[in-house]
Amino acid sequence: MKRILGIDPGLLHTGWAIIDVMGATRKYVASGVILPPVKADFASRLAFIFNGVSDLYEKFNPTECSIEVIFVNKNGKTTLLLGHARAAAITAIAIKNIPVFEYEPNKVKKALTGIGHADKEQIYKMLSILLPDAHPKTADESDAIAIALTHANTSRFVS
Amino acid sequence: MKRILGIDPGLLHTGWAIIDVMGATRKYVASGVILPPVKADFASRLAFIFNGVSDLYEKFNPTECSIEVIFVNKNGKTTLLLGHARAAAITAIAIKNIPVFEYEPNKVKKALTGIGHADKEQIYKMLSILLPDAHPKTADESDAIAIALTHANTSRFVS
Repeated sequence: MKRILGIDPGLLHTGWAIIDVMGATRKYVASGVILPPVKADFASRLAFIFNGVSDLYEKFNPTECSIEVIFVNKNGKTTLLLGHARAAAITAIAIKNIPVFEYEPNKVKKALTGIGHADKEQIYKMLSILLPDAHPKTADESDAIAIALTHANTSRFVS
Repeated sequence: MKRILGIDPGLLHTGWAIIDVMGATRKYVASGVILPPVKADFASRLAFIFNGVSDLYEKFNPTECSIEVIFVNKNGKTTLLLGHARAAAITAIAIKNIPVFEYEPNKVKKALTGIGHADKEQIYKMLSILLPDAHPKTADESDAIAIALTHANTSRFVS
């Protein structure tokens, strides 16, 4: 059995999801959002995300972590800030020697819908079919479930 | 007395410096470079930087941290990777509730030379005058000393 932690990072809200994988079976365990205090400064936000992910590690003992690759787009400043949030989350897992797998957005779409350019609605529809027990309340949570499931459906691990 | 940790982050090498400040006196304490193993993967590098900065915190007990602001330039991908290294370093300090101060590169130049567009040679020359006990071996180390000294010379704290 493998337990995957999926993370959708952000300075304002970081979605997370835990799913268990055994052979062809995927089981939803939990999901949620890490929300730094609204007035927290930049460094405190990174610390809050790091501590939040550390707590998830302690509570759920994931064996692998899955996170999206990000690219510099037109708004480079926003991407750079996102990169900091992403690094705080990755670091919290990497210091525990848990492997971190990175997937490009089109790989996520393809792994879940078979289509590299699927839209969000198609992905969320597939999530509700593949993991009917999951009832994500926010897009951050859904995206975290999607990235966890992508790793489950992409990796060739023996589970 | 304030003890400042200056950090010049990077995925390949992260320069660091410790200086003590008491009134108008600045004293060089130590400096060096955190070097992740050459073959370390991305997440492991972030973990190595985080652990390296955590060790500095334990060893030197800095009261404040100073780090440069980075901007997205033509090579957005490189800046994004640098942002991750920077976040790993900031996080290691921020979780200890040590304040992290950020300075733009031209502020560093101005604080040390009086000139916002000073070149590296002018900065290194000033460092050798301001902190004659420091004998940095690499540019990363010099840059870490420069950012620590910038905070000492810019901040209005009562020391």
